[in-house]
Amino acid sequence: MTEAVTACVLIIGNEILSGRTQDINLAHLAKSLGQWGIQVREARVIADVEATIIDVVNDARCRFDYVFTTGGIGPTHDDITALSIAKAFNLPLFQHPDIEVRIRKRPAPDNVMKNRLLMARVPQGAVLIDNPTGGPQGFAIENVYVMAGIPSVMQAMLSTLQATLRGGPIVHSRSIKAYVTESQIAGELGHIQNQQPSLDIGSYPFYRADRYGTILVVRGTDREQIESASTAIIRAVESLGESPEDLGFANA
Amino acid sequence: MTEAVTACVLIIGNEILSGRTQDINLAHLAKSLGQWGIQVREARVIADVEATIIDVVNDARCRFDYVFTTGGIGPTHDDITALSIAKAFNLPLFQHPDIEVRIRKRPAPDNVMKNRLLMARVPQGAVLIDNPTGGPQGFAIENVYVMAGIPSVMQAMLSTLQATLRGGPIVHSRSIKAYVTESQIAGELGHIQNQQPSLDIGSYPFYRADRYGTILVVRGTDREQIESASTAIIRAVESLGESPEDLGFANA
Repeated sequence: MTEAVTACVLIIGNEILSGRTQDINLAHLAKSLGQWGIQVREARVIADVEATIIDVVNDARCRFDYVFTTGGIGPTHDDITALSIAKAFNLPLFQHPDIEVRIRKRPAPDNVMKNRLLMARVPQGAVLIDNPTGGPQGFAIENVYVMAGIPSVMQAMLSTLQATLRGGPIVHSRSIKAYVTESQIAGELGHIQNQQPSLDIGSYPFYRADRYGTILVVRGTDREQIESASTAIIRAVESLGESPEDLGFANA
Repeated sequence: MTEAVTACVLIIGNEILSGRTQDINLAHLAKSLGQWGIQVREARVIADVEATIIDVVNDARCRFDYVFTTGGIGPTHDDITALSIAKAFNLPLFQHPDIEVRIRKRPAPDNVMKNRLLMARVPQGAVLIDNPTGGPQGFAIENVYVMAGIPSVMQAMLSTLQATLRGGPIVHSRSIKAYVTESQIAGELGHIQNQQPSLDIGSYPFYRADRYGTILVVRGTDREQIESASTAIIRAVESLGESPEDLGFANA
């Protein structure tokens, strides 16, 4: 079996930690990367603090195959991601000519252009991540991919990476909806999980139209194993006198 | 000046890391705790893996005044939060009589009740967190608060904690909306930030009705300092020929 390829997502920004902004980048990254065979194993939301970014990047880049960061690459004083990542790698920042060309396309007074050009600074040796929205590019240095925090821009940048990232086995997921409680199905579910330890079987309770129910999710890289566990779950629900609804395969 | 009281949020669950479920607990926790004078300084989203939960809990409880976890306290095989946290503290699990009483209130067949009672297990010495939805309680052990992952249940549990948590200075935030780009205002904004280093001045670009704009956010514990920096920002926007819109104080 090919080994899993893993990733850590770092969401950088005080506005997420204060609750002012609801993050939606993690879910998008997890789903997209998952489809490409890269499994997000951890995410950290951290503040715009240089020492924190350096520590967390250096920890994550050793523990995971890939690190994806979002946020902190704009032109203001609190946009310290590029500088902090350069420091994490002990590399100098330099003004990348390709980003500069793109920034200078839109004219501006000198003092405004000077601030905009701050977005052209990347660590020496970084490879650019294209930005199909037309704004300044992101960058990658070794296994760390640095992208914008604005969801539409992050998504555009990420879409350009599929061909360059190395994927491993893809995790598929199949969901079954049943009007049984978790406690009713827990015993049988644990039994099915024990028999198929390479799968990840989850249960997510819901309450709708005055009834308790559970979404049962089987995740794994082997579709046949998933089918077999799903069949066992369907039988377990039926043995409780309920008719499960097969929601089929999905990518998360 | 009283010292800041800090917190780390741990979101435990494979379904968040796969992108299947969009987390909304972090934003709610950040805003509520912020209003009580507890600043969320970091959040980690981690998998339902015992060794990971133990490591991350033990790291976080040393670095922050409080740790709040969500997820993994249901009755199925993947609900391993209580057990993992007991191991992190080197404590045995025991069946808490108050949770048992609550669980037994709703009758069920023996095998279902046996699974439900798994939710009564907490580390020896844990203090319960009430659950106003009527379901099993959460628990706190030392500075670690363990709550449900379902947002409505987590929010109900959290609402009972306000009186027991020790808050520090409250961070206030004031926002100003202006149709200027970040690059136009960056220089002046950096200057204002340098003059008031104890404040946290952020800028969040937006694009609406064919115009670029920026929300400028001043955060800090001293309202007079916030007023003074806000006035300086309003003047800076006006000097660019734009009329800023004062969005006033908010809690995030």
